[in-house]
Amino acid sequence: MKALVYHGPGQKAWEDVADATIEEPTDVVVRVDTTTICGTDLHILHGDVAAVTDGRILGHEAVGTVTEVGGAVKGFRPGDRVLVPAITKCGRCDYCQRGMPSHCQTVGGIGWIFGHLIDGTQAELVRVPYADTSLYQVPADVSDEQAIFLADALPTGYEVGVLAGQVRPGDTVAVVGAGAVGLAAILTTGLWGASRVIAIDSNKFRLEKALEFGATDVFEAGQGTAGDVLALTDGLGVDVAIEAVGFPETLLTAASLVRPGGTIANIGVHGVPVEIPMQDMWIKNVRLTMGLVDTVSIPTLLKMVASGRIPAEKMGTHTFTFDQMTEAYGVFGNAAANAALKVIITPA
Amino acid sequence: MKALVYHGPGQKAWEDVADATIEEPTDVVVRVDTTTICGTDLHILHGDVAAVTDGRILGHEAVGTVTEVGGAVKGFRPGDRVLVPAITKCGRCDYCQRGMPSHCQTVGGIGWIFGHLIDGTQAELVRVPYADTSLYQVPADVSDEQAIFLADALPTGYEVGVLAGQVRPGDTVAVVGAGAVGLAAILTTGLWGASRVIAIDSNKFRLEKALEFGATDVFEAGQGTAGDVLALTDGLGVDVAIEAVGFPETLLTAASLVRPGGTIANIGVHGVPVEIPMQDMWIKNVRLTMGLVDTVSIPTLLKMVASGRIPAEKMGTHTFTFDQMTEAYGVFGNAAANAALKVIITPA
Amino acid sequence: MKALVYHGPGQKAWEDVADATIEEPTDVVVRVDTTTICGTDLHILHGDVAAVTDGRILGHEAVGTVTEVGGAVKGFRPGDRVLVPAITKCGRCDYCQRGMPSHCQTVGGIGWIFGHLIDGTQAELVRVPYADTSLYQVPADVSDEQAIFLADALPTGYEVGVLAGQVRPGDTVAVVGAGAVGLAAILTTGLWGASRVIAIDSNKFRLEKALEFGATDVFEAGQGTAGDVLALTDGLGVDVAIEAVGFPETLLTAASLVRPGGTIANIGVHGVPVEIPMQDMWIKNVRLTMGLVDTVSIPTLLKMVASGRIPAEKMGTHTFTFDQMTEAYGVFGNAAANAALKVIITPA
Amino acid sequence: MKALVYHGPGQKAWEDVADATIEEPTDVVVRVDTTTICGTDLHILHGDVAAVTDGRILGHEAVGTVTEVGGAVKGFRPGDRVLVPAITKCGRCDYCQRGMPSHCQTVGGIGWIFGHLIDGTQAELVRVPYADTSLYQVPADVSDEQAIFLADALPTGYEVGVLAGQVRPGDTVAVVGAGAVGLAAILTTGLWGASRVIAIDSNKFRLEKALEFGATDVFEAGQGTAGDVLALTDGLGVDVAIEAVGFPETLLTAASLVRPGGTIANIGVHGVPVEIPMQDMWIKNVRLTMGLVDTVSIPTLLKMVASGRIPAEKMGTHTFTFDQMTEAYGVFGNAAANAALKVIITPA
Repeated sequence: MKALVYHGPGQKAWEDVADATIEEPTDVVVRVDTTTICGTDLHILHGDVAAVTDGRILGHEAVGTVTEVGGAVKGFRPGDRVLVPAITKCGRCDYCQRGMPSHCQTVGGIGWIFGHLIDGTQAELVRVPYADTSLYQVPADVSDEQAIFLADALPTGYEVGVLAGQVRPGDTVAVVGAGAVGLAAILTTGLWGASRVIAIDSNKFRLEKALEFGATDVFEAGQGTAGDVLALTDGLGVDVAIEAVGFPETLLTAASLVRPGGTIANIGVHGVPVEIPMQDMWIKNVRLTMGLVDTVSIPTLLKMVASGRIPAEKMGTHTFTFDQMTEAYGVFGNAAANAALKVIITPA
Repeated sequence: MKALVYHGPGQKAWEDVADATIEEPTDVVVRVDTTTICGTDLHILHGDVAAVTDGRILGHEAVGTVTEVGGAVKGFRPGDRVLVPAITKCGRCDYCQRGMPSHCQTVGGIGWIFGHLIDGTQAELVRVPYADTSLYQVPADVSDEQAIFLADALPTGYEVGVLAGQVRPGDTVAVVGAGAVGLAAILTTGLWGASRVIAIDSNKFRLEKALEFGATDVFEAGQGTAGDVLALTDGLGVDVAIEAVGFPETLLTAASLVRPGGTIANIGVHGVPVEIPMQDMWIKNVRLTMGLVDTVSIPTLLKMVASGRIPAEKMGTHTFTFDQMTEAYGVFGNAAANAALKVIITPA
Repeated sequence: MKALVYHGPGQKAWEDVADATIEEPTDVVVRVDTTTICGTDLHILHGDVAAVTDGRILGHEAVGTVTEVGGAVKGFRPGDRVLVPAITKCGRCDYCQRGMPSHCQTVGGIGWIFGHLIDGTQAELVRVPYADTSLYQVPADVSDEQAIFLADALPTGYEVGVLAGQVRPGDTVAVVGAGAVGLAAILTTGLWGASRVIAIDSNKFRLEKALEFGATDVFEAGQGTAGDVLALTDGLGVDVAIEAVGFPETLLTAASLVRPGGTIANIGVHGVPVEIPMQDMWIKNVRLTMGLVDTVSIPTLLKMVASGRIPAEKMGTHTFTFDQMTEAYGVFGNAAANAALKVIITPA
Repeated sequence: MKALVYHGPGQKAWEDVADATIEEPTDVVVRVDTTTICGTDLHILHGDVAAVTDGRILGHEAVGTVTEVGGAVKGFRPGDRVLVPAITKCGRCDYCQRGMPSHCQTVGGIGWIFGHLIDGTQAELVRVPYADTSLYQVPADVSDEQAIFLADALPTGYEVGVLAGQVRPGDTVAVVGAGAVGLAAILTTGLWGASRVIAIDSNKFRLEKALEFGATDVFEAGQGTAGDVLALTDGLGVDVAIEAVGFPETLLTAASLVRPGGTIANIGVHGVPVEIPMQDMWIKNVRLTMGLVDTVSIPTLLKMVASGRIPAEKMGTHTFTFDQMTEAYGVFGNAAANAALKVIITPA
């Protein structure tokens, strides 16, 4: 089969490799019908993720068709149309039983293993371990182009932003960073009744998208941002500030926007420490949350997409075929300049 | 009346002042039968709290007897034995209605006003605003020596440590700092079924007290602390790490102890920023909470003291009379060296 | 002033009475600009509510203008435009402090006192006790015709139906009874992300309104209703079944629709016992909730009305003036036949 | 092997049957080291459970040793000491993923299958399906005589009584019925900080046990019970009333004890409908919960037993060997008269 293989920092190739096969009775093999690229794949290519080594097939998002099932698999059969989520769950460790497979102790201490600790989804076929507890059937009324964004981007914005941030009816929410994941948070705050959603970004295309995805107000990031946002509230700030970038400045911006009693929900992947003004914040009765997606919200999101309340397909701005994989990386790697959010990659 | 008056950094005196009187129809005046000193009073004397100015009567904790009530007061009558909590609540602002009077917008944007924005409780009489919504009746089976610690120390350990930390049955909890507030957290974790409570401090007297207050394990703070604590768990760390000191190192210690999915509950009052290792923490699905006490747990704590499950009186290690106020400050100001936790101060 | 006075079962009159005045320093007097009629007023007129005696002014819903304030009132001034909610809260009893003023122990053991234990809102003036903790300012961008339905109907559907029912994103919700309160539940389920809302009623006008208020599916009540509803789900039933009528049959219908693990939220006022099939239900891991509205969701609902997400004005189908009070009762008393939901009654 | 086989109403025998073996790759076989009898087994013998047919091996509680594992089992090996809980969970259906395997759709629409839909644990060997997601390792510091009661009785009292009842710190809890499951609720209310636990039963031995298990007050059931209980509170009733019998009268007793805003948690298995006084209850803001145990609290309970906070072994009052199975049923079948709570049955 063909797959996108990592060959060290900066090196990748769409090349021939051995077919994915059943290795354990709890595995299935899925033929990939749609995949996409995540910001994390770019980090890997920059050499930032030491656990990814030469020869690894990249990618952790797919919609596909089951071609083969292991002897212990009960929930799936060849021909089933499935969503392969970013997170694999054994279903039996303490973390999986508590609904936090992001830290599944069985599959590696972390639930994100595709394109990281095992071969991934940017390939014609992918082996899916613990299929019964990890895969999801895709309902007939949800398209591949919708479902693919439920593998990672939408659950990340929703779980790590909206759910961890504890958005509640009537809340005012600020989202710092309107890239794919920030937009996913904007798209899903309505599920918990936010009354006002404020997007902040330095890129005008993204702010336009934010309005289209449900933001009620947008601001270009700058010196006066905090003042502008506070002026929209009663002067005390927002109920929930979601950080969706991953830099110290953006996290501090989010922290500066939150009212006493509110939540700062960090989604961004950070590479360096952040100096938090605890001397000002300790008295504010705020909480700072952070974490990896669990993808356990997928059943909820599938229902909301099926019912038309979450237009997930809006995340896909560019379409490529497998043999244009390098081009797809090029566009996504420079998303802001290319007016790109997420790319859709299909066989042919 | 006599009262302890602040006269600028390092200056205080137990001196004659005008009697406290009713100023608003929602006020009552309370004769102070028992008061105590808080770490915050020491901060004020060090000049760290700019809002406290020359002439202010200090103190924000009291048990006493109502001597006079304003015309609009319905819930209290002269002779009632009452607890004056650290936090004043108007009962009508959004924060009060949500149970977060720490940020009461009516009384000053902050619910802590005694000995801060208005005259305090280290006095023979104290005026209590918004008495109906702020004061608590003390049940007959709770002594003054128990109730006084429900004015601030116990609710702080319980609300900002145990409740914000979301301790749940079976949890392992680490408490960094076993001073009065850390011990309050240790004393109240049992209300939420913690299975193991680990105290960490550099002072042996406090670690002995920690065991007496319900800790199951104690460690002297040092290089190997994190390793020692992790060895007591499955290697992943504790469910809840409570910080009860207020320094960058102690917060970082707490952060280093928490397992994926856990909570770091900061109680300490911080004076400087803290550099958080977000590059390691973002992926851990943890939350960091912080804040001022609301004292809304007082009804619960009164029931638990009355039923004998919370031996609040253990917090009081030294007793003084009003005219020994300076001596009381001397002992409490050097608590560790004096084997002191909290002091009890009464009229005669 | 003029007011609608109850004179025993079946007897009422719009007549001259003494003006409402300040009696306690915590009172305000409000000039009624808009009022409405509730199903409970009809129950009173039928003689079903023994506590209401001859001479009582009816009504417990109003939007108006403050004309006079008691000496202890801090939050309101003459001229303020206010919402007078169905529930009065002292703000200091245990129930009020827990956010459950429906059982305020101070005002009567029950928070509903207007038009019940004290004179009500179907009058030119009304005395409002505990004004600081009970009244709400009406924002400029919310009209009287919207705000009036936040006094009782909308909070009842939302709190006793949607909140008690614990509607969560993705849920399927059935509402049995599409009168004013059932429609209020339908209008507000979206705040918690319901994916499907099924209305059941025997009246076609109400089912049409249900679709207009946000129901995704409607069924005429009948033999096959349960089968029809179950066929819309996976055969197991709905997540939340809301009862909004108050008869044994409608509660049993609601109970028959709920899936294992779901909630039956009873809003209806019942007059007789209900025989519950516990032999079938005990194993289903369901909960049955019931209760009086607290009206504590009013701040949230005001924000949602102001932001345009809750079109509260749709509840008002007929408009009358004070001197048409009897006519208003006539139309509302036969609401289904008159294609009426709620009536709006104003001075002139 | 030997096993207790059901042969129709009133008929059972400890007889030779074919050995339990691996049938699916997700199975394990467990050698039973300790089992017990549940009230449900008595119901089956009375012919009340139609799904149990001639030839079925009874029992759904065991502690044992793994003897054989299927090819897909990852978490258990021969020799492991394990707890076989009453509930089997596939780990992948919606109910299992939500932590409600009581309604596992895969194993039968109900999670209780041992001694019901498949052969049970009152045998020398038992086949355990979905072992990875259903079995629990028993820690070295928990004895068989403790662990056996975590298979059903303790989780039932805890989950269906204490957790569903939402006991919170400071609460007063009444438990109607102090048999094994009621006592399990009493034993575990402390995990959520109940301040007062009131047991009600008609049997003096059970009331004595209730005090030993942690009740603070006991009452013999009778005419004056409700008055007695209300007199212990502020006259309004208890926060949580747990029903642990299963008759209309006991459920109505529980309902009569609960204060406004409280919860009635039904644990009892009911055989007939119950006429609920909705005309009085609708206004009380109470909830009535009910259901089958999920056994998902076992990890928490194992920690609390291991730490000494839950003396689970107290549930076992009588000990038998496998060949005394009939005698064991005799004693347990007349538990009150024999001063029995639960029996412990071991091989030899």
